[in-house]
Amino acid sequence: MEKLVGACMFGQSGGPTSVINSSAAGVFTEALKQDCITKVYGAAHGIRGVLNEEFYDIGEEDMKELMLLKNTPSSALGSVRYKLKPEKVDDTDYKRLLEVFKKYNIRYFFYNGGNDSMDTCNKVSKFMKKSGWECRVIGVPKTIDNDLFGTDHCPGYGSAAKYVATTMMELKLDANVYDTPMITIVEIMGRHAGWLTAAASLANYKGLGADLIYLPEKPFSVDKFKNDVKNVMEKNGGKCMVAVSEGISDENGKLIAEVLAGDSLARDSFGHAQLGGVGAALANMCKAEFGCKTRAVEFSLMQRCGAHLASKTDVEEAFKAGAAAVKYAVKGTTDKMVILKRDMSSGKYKCKVGVMSVAKAANAEKKVPDSWIINDGTMLSQEYIDYALPLIQGDCKAPLEDGLPRFAKLKKVPVKK
Amino acid sequence: MEKLVGACMFGQSGGPTSVINSSAAGVFTEALKQDCITKVYGAAHGIRGVLNEEFYDIGEEDMKELMLLKNTPSSALGSVRYKLKPEKVDDTDYKRLLEVFKKYNIRYFFYNGGNDSMDTCNKVSKFMKKSGWECRVIGVPKTIDNDLFGTDHCPGYGSAAKYVATTMMELKLDANVYDTPMITIVEIMGRHAGWLTAAASLANYKGLGADLIYLPEKPFSVDKFKNDVKNVMEKNGGKCMVAVSEGISDENGKLIAEVLAGDSLARDSFGHAQLGGVGAALANMCKAEFGCKTRAVEFSLMQRCGAHLASKTDVEEAFKAGAAAVKYAVKGTTDKMVILKRDMSSGKYKCKVGVMSVAKAANAEKKVPDSWIINDGTMLSQEYIDYALPLIQGDCKAPLEDGLPRFAKLKKVPVKK
Repeated sequence: MEKLVGACMFGQSGGPTSVINSSAAGVFTEALKQDCITKVYGAAHGIRGVLNEEFYDIGEEDMKELMLLKNTPSSALGSVRYKLKPEKVDDTDYKRLLEVFKKYNIRYFFYNGGNDSMDTCNKVSKFMKKSGWECRVIGVPKTIDNDLFGTDHCPGYGSAAKYVATTMMELKLDANVYDTPMITIVEIMGRHAGWLTAAASLANYKGLGADLIYLPEKPFSVDKFKNDVKNVMEKNGGKCMVAVSEGISDENGKLIAEVLAGDSLARDSFGHAQLGGVGAALANMCKAEFGCKTRAVEFSLMQRCGAHLASKTDVEEAFKAGAAAVKYAVKGTTDKMVILKRDMSSGKYKCKVGVMSVAKAANAEKKVPDSWIINDGTMLSQEYIDYALPLIQGDCKAPLEDGLPRFAKLKKVPVKK
Repeated sequence: MEKLVGACMFGQSGGPTSVINSSAAGVFTEALKQDCITKVYGAAHGIRGVLNEEFYDIGEEDMKELMLLKNTPSSALGSVRYKLKPEKVDDTDYKRLLEVFKKYNIRYFFYNGGNDSMDTCNKVSKFMKKSGWECRVIGVPKTIDNDLFGTDHCPGYGSAAKYVATTMMELKLDANVYDTPMITIVEIMGRHAGWLTAAASLANYKGLGADLIYLPEKPFSVDKFKNDVKNVMEKNGGKCMVAVSEGISDENGKLIAEVLAGDSLARDSFGHAQLGGVGAALANMCKAEFGCKTRAVEFSLMQRCGAHLASKTDVEEAFKAGAAAVKYAVKGTTDKMVILKRDMSSGKYKCKVGVMSVAKAANAEKKVPDSWIINDGTMLSQEYIDYALPLIQGDCKAPLEDGLPRFAKLKKVPVKK
């Protein structure tokens, strides 16, 4: 196959993670090496940057800073939550994208994100094909939620899971110091899939975890919860530590945060409810029910940006996924998402890359298998531990300067319109 | 002076820190070396363990595990918030302590904590002296709040400050990813002294900090706050990041958390208000005021137990303070608290130990100097940076096992009653 010569565009989308920039480093360093890629552009705020012709010339960056991206959390180029309307409803954005792609001779489009970003990839890819503009589109997966279908796991998950497990261990030590009854409720991100909350069980594996773990995969009953806590309190001398996913819902699918708050929640531009607060609501309820001290802890943004606790495995795999996207595209692959494949053939964990249809990735959601949720919906099985443990191995953080992380500082030279 | 021969008792009190166990390791390893110390006891849950004759024989522990205490957060022996009543009001506890001290021939009493714990030291010391029971009493300082008088800084502060500064940097990157207006309010511990909240400015020093920092040292005006935020939003394209101490109060001394909540707060056994929620309250207010997305982040327990981000300087100084307590006592010192003294004579930061009256330490509170709070009460000066930066240097965390911290596992062999 003749090589496709032209510029590449890379964008970051959706909620940031500790390693989304590591994938960016993988894309950039690989793209800069490829002869057929004439220019490497980084879009400011994802697809919106492309639409607005706001992007940076990555060729102007120092290689040292690009490599520091591996240990820099969040989205260095800026992210976006922007959903392309179906072409039939409104094709304005698509026409504009084609215009920009033609103007800058963009022949490679790499987009890093979760389900919604894969949907964007799919739509862009289809439109370009229909319009006769040859352009290779590859999605690079990322999400702390680990809910992308078709990949063994997602870049971003291992580091967030390591944050959750490590912090749960530390919290358990902290919560146990007083000899008085105490209920601690830890709220962890995850709307529909409980992968990240499940990581609390890795702390249990090391003897310092939550007594009860609730995932959104199982309907949550407030009455059963009270009874579960009561049983733990009786057994543990008045102590109980609980990990709950922000997305736990009752049997009718109503969020427990809503059930307890009694009012509706704000929604973002994708129509997702803006959650938060279920931990505090449960803690208040427990205070009234058990009359003891309670504490609600929310891992909040720290669980997705705590790069100082990044997993080396995750950082390296994220980089590899980014580099692989470029290699696949240069070889002719398009309309695919890079996936990570677990290889245990040597008896030890190894990770290989592959690709799958980006359309499939966009429309499916991977949840924690039912059989991994044990103890009447309050704990994870050894299968989960075996699955997750390899993903959190190794330390890998930014070099220290004045005792604090030295993150990448990009020049962000804007491309002239 | 003839050496005082007998057992030693060590207890941990008040809220735990990342390095309180490092001081324990210092006390234990030094006490186990001293010939005149016949037995080394660790009290379960501080003074309450002494009263209840619940303590552990530290001589039974493995040295390897004792050394792992250096990197194990929280209070390994258990902590307590228990205030001895003035002897004149009720001398029951004092008589009981004397009884226990005599029964086990306790001649050395080391107590690790903050102001309230130094008060306990002072009372115990006075009563033993009055009763003719020779016993050397030394307080070992600890508090993430850094508010103890007479010591340059407190063990526990450096690690908590490093947590705050590092996490603020990461949050700043995270908060900036979307190109839409956003106000982030970060709530940091500190009832009356703003030392820990001030640490947010270390992130500013590295170019990634809060736009506004509010300490409890300055009366907080809700109207001025709104105006400050408005000015930042206008200057920064709709972004504003704020760090507030949980203890900020209005000009009448009423907690802003109370002002905005409109109801009273629970109080702990020392009479301290159980704070929390001011960040969320301010975020809600900003949402109504500015109509943009807001987010409240609370560092909660993580800031005091995040040992994976401990400062090496802090860990080593905490250990040294514990060991020094034993050395001072063996040499005849009593009724004192160990202090840390900054020595800049070589041009580089060095830390020496000393002692001061425990009574003085008990009744004073050290606040952030007025002249260090600049920009109309919204930022810290270079003096603060110079003060705090040496305290957060170096990494020092527990060894990893399965990618997670390997914390100390004590046998906790109970001493027979």
